[in-house]
Amino acid sequence: MLDLQSLLNDISQTLSNEVDRGKVANYIPELAKQDNRHFGMAIATIDGQLFSTGDAFEAFSIQSISKVFTLTMALGKIGDKLWERVGREPSGTAFNSIVQLEHEKGVPRNPFINAGAIVVSDIVLAGHQPKETIAEILCFVRCLANDDSILIDQDVAQSETDTGFRNAALANYMRAFGNLHHPVDETLGVYFHQCSIAMTCVQLARSGLYLANGGVNPLIASTVVPRHRVRRINAIMMTCGHYDGSGEFAFSVGLPGKSGVGGGILVIVPDKAAIAVWSPGLDPNGNSKLGTMALEMLVAKTGWNVFGA
Amino acid sequence: MLDLQSLLNDISQTLSNEVDRGKVANYIPELAKQDNRHFGMAIATIDGQLFSTGDAFEAFSIQSISKVFTLTMALGKIGDKLWERVGREPSGTAFNSIVQLEHEKGVPRNPFINAGAIVVSDIVLAGHQPKETIAEILCFVRCLANDDSILIDQDVAQSETDTGFRNAALANYMRAFGNLHHPVDETLGVYFHQCSIAMTCVQLARSGLYLANGGVNPLIASTVVPRHRVRRINAIMMTCGHYDGSGEFAFSVGLPGKSGVGGGILVIVPDKAAIAVWSPGLDPNGNSKLGTMALEMLVAKTGWNVFGA
Amino acid sequence: MLDLQSLLNDISQTLSNEVDRGKVANYIPELAKQDNRHFGMAIATIDGQLFSTGDAFEAFSIQSISKVFTLTMALGKIGDKLWERVGREPSGTAFNSIVQLEHEKGVPRNPFINAGAIVVSDIVLAGHQPKETIAEILCFVRCLANDDSILIDQDVAQSETDTGFRNAALANYMRAFGNLHHPVDETLGVYFHQCSIAMTCVQLARSGLYLANGGVNPLIASTVVPRHRVRRINAIMMTCGHYDGSGEFAFSVGLPGKSGVGGGILVIVPDKAAIAVWSPGLDPNGNSKLGTMALEMLVAKTGWNVFGA
Amino acid sequence: MLDLQSLLNDISQTLSNEVDRGKVANYIPELAKQDNRHFGMAIATIDGQLFSTGDAFEAFSIQSISKVFTLTMALGKIGDKLWERVGREPSGTAFNSIVQLEHEKGVPRNPFINAGAIVVSDIVLAGHQPKETIAEILCFVRCLANDDSILIDQDVAQSETDTGFRNAALANYMRAFGNLHHPVDETLGVYFHQCSIAMTCVQLARSGLYLANGGVNPLIASTVVPRHRVRRINAIMMTCGHYDGSGEFAFSVGLPGKSGVGGGILVIVPDKAAIAVWSPGLDPNGNSKLGTMALEMLVAKTGWNVFGA
Repeated sequence: MLDLQSLLNDISQTLSNEVDRGKVANYIPELAKQDNRHFGMAIATIDGQLFSTGDAFEAFSIQSISKVFTLTMALGKIGDKLWERVGREPSGTAFNSIVQLEHEKGVPRNPFINAGAIVVSDIVLAGHQPKETIAEILCFVRCLANDDSILIDQDVAQSETDTGFRNAALANYMRAFGNLHHPVDETLGVYFHQCSIAMTCVQLARSGLYLANGGVNPLIASTVVPRHRVRRINAIMMTCGHYDGSGEFAFSVGLPGKSGVGGGILVIVPDKAAIAVWSPGLDPNGNSKLGTMALEMLVAKTGWNVFGA
Repeated sequence: MLDLQSLLNDISQTLSNEVDRGKVANYIPELAKQDNRHFGMAIATIDGQLFSTGDAFEAFSIQSISKVFTLTMALGKIGDKLWERVGREPSGTAFNSIVQLEHEKGVPRNPFINAGAIVVSDIVLAGHQPKETIAEILCFVRCLANDDSILIDQDVAQSETDTGFRNAALANYMRAFGNLHHPVDETLGVYFHQCSIAMTCVQLARSGLYLANGGVNPLIASTVVPRHRVRRINAIMMTCGHYDGSGEFAFSVGLPGKSGVGGGILVIVPDKAAIAVWSPGLDPNGNSKLGTMALEMLVAKTGWNVFGA
Repeated sequence: MLDLQSLLNDISQTLSNEVDRGKVANYIPELAKQDNRHFGMAIATIDGQLFSTGDAFEAFSIQSISKVFTLTMALGKIGDKLWERVGREPSGTAFNSIVQLEHEKGVPRNPFINAGAIVVSDIVLAGHQPKETIAEILCFVRCLANDDSILIDQDVAQSETDTGFRNAALANYMRAFGNLHHPVDETLGVYFHQCSIAMTCVQLARSGLYLANGGVNPLIASTVVPRHRVRRINAIMMTCGHYDGSGEFAFSVGLPGKSGVGGGILVIVPDKAAIAVWSPGLDPNGNSKLGTMALEMLVAKTGWNVFGA
Repeated sequence: MLDLQSLLNDISQTLSNEVDRGKVANYIPELAKQDNRHFGMAIATIDGQLFSTGDAFEAFSIQSISKVFTLTMALGKIGDKLWERVGREPSGTAFNSIVQLEHEKGVPRNPFINAGAIVVSDIVLAGHQPKETIAEILCFVRCLANDDSILIDQDVAQSETDTGFRNAALANYMRAFGNLHHPVDETLGVYFHQCSIAMTCVQLARSGLYLANGGVNPLIASTVVPRHRVRRINAIMMTCGHYDGSGEFAFSVGLPGKSGVGGGILVIVPDKAAIAVWSPGLDPNGNSKLGTMALEMLVAKTGWNVFGA
């Protein structure tokens, strides 16, 4: 039988010797302050166990991982109509590219590239005030993790607002095609704040359990989303969850996952567990370098790979 | 317990009423002669059972499905060095696009787009005569299916040679970057012939079993490829197996698969079975329309979806 | 000897029978109100003669023609340093494309596509208040035309501000690369107002005389710009003045010119005259359809073609 | 009055001190053998004078300059129908790019990029044998220069054939769209041989005189092409004659010209003269570095700039 705690300890120990820890994201000033020596990891199983190591109780900026949660919310609000405004194909270009929008009339390739996530935020906004919507997203995430202490890091949110010119370009571009329904500033306000949610690995692993458990949050025995939709969200995490490194992640880890430039990765082991890992140093595709290595080690030992035991 | 035979019968029955059966590929004259009323499907399980329906014993042109087999062969020949000449990211553009090669210096995005498969053929060629290499590929596929009656359709091969200008453009373009090591005509000769292998659904399902069975061909109890490589081939089938409809296929079917413009699809159910389906009418992305529908139905009933039961 | 007045009358007469007059620009609501039956034309010669026909005394929105004037101003302010922030090559794509900026790190191809003109406005802004800069541009144009009655159409300016999402996307995108030095709203404020200057054909032809006269405005005998710079501005008008129809215009008219989506075209006959023509209906490239036809007729009769008598 | 001979001598003298002479083209092995210390220049006036300096009597490979002559021939054969198969807009990308063809269904942007020139060669081929067509092109050029000693450099032709994979890619790609009417090898055979014509600056300047003289070759008093077509060929030379440096050449030299990677440039002074310059070292856009500098000096002294005296 697997001794997950020992396994996490081994991984943490092995990676502590790693010299090349990747580069901390530098385009958001607040994130650039992070120390790439951090490493934390947590596993939450659907039967209620929790394993953790390293800095698993330290909060970090979840950034693009939030896109999984807002996608879940938006599908709850408008269902498959969402797919008229966002595609579900891998993007094949760098994560903040604007080129593809030109060819596809303002419809982003998938909900996990920035442009797609901004449309998703626009759907979640749904005519409400940005403040209300931001509160609604935070509430949803707290509910998933069953933890009311989760907060938005206002310094990060402000830093993103001050420097988010590429996202403003994307948003204005989609507005030109009629694919944003609210003023650009309001939609971006929601987007920047959702990205600035700060969570620990433990909170994040727990918040992903509904995707490992057929849509039911086992912490509070509540259905978050129907079973068939869980499979689809997981599928998009597999094909699009790691920007232009998604194929690589499927190849080397073989599990649905979503990374953020804060250095976090949320990974789903269907029908078994949710895993969160955090280390701020990134690889050239913008995914956590040590986080990916840790997941490769874990998968090699556990056989948790959807492509074959 | 699942009654797979009844399920196949139901699927076949339901689809027989389908009016919009997609369009037969028309850019290869020989393929354009196909009748889109054909439908066949076969399931081969790793424990030796076989289920089939419709035209499951009629041979068709496997086309791009052959890329799975040559990738397996090429990895056997040069191992991970292959990834220096071919990427493993979804392409994000139409299957015969040449644009991406310009940006990435002649290195195709993945081994399942045409450009990538041509490089793989060049690797399999490995300094031998094209005739020998074509024979070697055919032999390999016969061995996988444990069926020596499998043949190459020479009319299709000739038709592809006569009209394959786009593939000739791709090949010359990569040659300009030094990413083909043999004369263009030789490499293309291999490529056009592997695409022209004709197989039945039953043969195809059997030939895919090694990918469902940890690399071991259960028909002859022989190891084709190591276990870790199986997972990776399956991963690439998931993220890149359906041209620009790969995300859609992962979303709606949730299994690794590879389609061909002959109307066939080979699908792997890790640790359980291999499935082949054939219907010549294609959707706009070049994937079998009824084939995909059949797979969606099968997955809905069996729960064979790697993203959650 | 040329009888320019008779020639203009003939052209006007001929074109009055034209049925297919092109489509009025519809993406700026105020411009969409224009009537495509309008046609006006004026020729101002460097020796002080003026010829006109049709609606040559009716004001219209000069739109992108203003880019010639702000380029002249910006070169006056920072000289050839301007070319570090803007290229001078034809763009090869539609006039509002954002794709190219991705490849060239936020440096637009030339000063006559929207992105380039926004950078030029940013240079003219030069740390001042947008209101002051807008006044400075208007003053410059009045001086060129020697006519203080020229005004900015505030309804058009407001309409552009309300709907200019593509330009906002371009501006934010360039800001992300550091190629705008002022807040996006301020630079766009200048840009939208310069485009909203309303002029008649007569005023416009006169305002272009300095480019036909070695840099000297003959109306007031004042040097606007040195002789070598005039040649260069004319060269850019030739290669880049008509969006993705610049090659076509050089081919069929053979004179440096700059069009605007309001339906105006300003054309320079080096060492002889400046011509303005206006008809609101556009061809698919966004250039005045009847305006171009009128210029082709004029050139055919006068031999005013820089590529050979 | 201009003393052109002294001017040429001065230019030659000044440039002899230039240290950075650009890089000789290296992608065609035979051309890579050239010595970048060469410099020659010749001016032929329409009234029969000839001025020359440096290596003006040494033959070099005219390469893409041949595109001017084959365009003239093709227009003579099929007239404006040519424009259904080739555009006349600047390309906005590197000279051997294949990307644009994807977007425009196999129709090259203009006749001076490689793809466009290959279509033009296909038009000139017109059902004849490649050998006959090559002889016809050579004959045409000899006639223009009034010099039967002009030859094709067979070593260069062979070198291009052996290494021209990019051109083979372009040709196959256009064949896939039906925009080549002959077997790829035949059309490329013509193309590679026309590029391999060897001429001296004196021969080249003389051969361009018809474009400076309203279509009439003054050497033999024979009409080569109608006057209106001359203007159009000159216009395309202006907007497209220097690959992705065409805007720059119009900006700095202000005359229609066509460069070749052999280091030659042919320039037309409408109604006055034709100029040929040769120096094998190229700038990053593939245009002769010293050749361009020499032309800038000449224009500065003569005022031969179509954009203003």
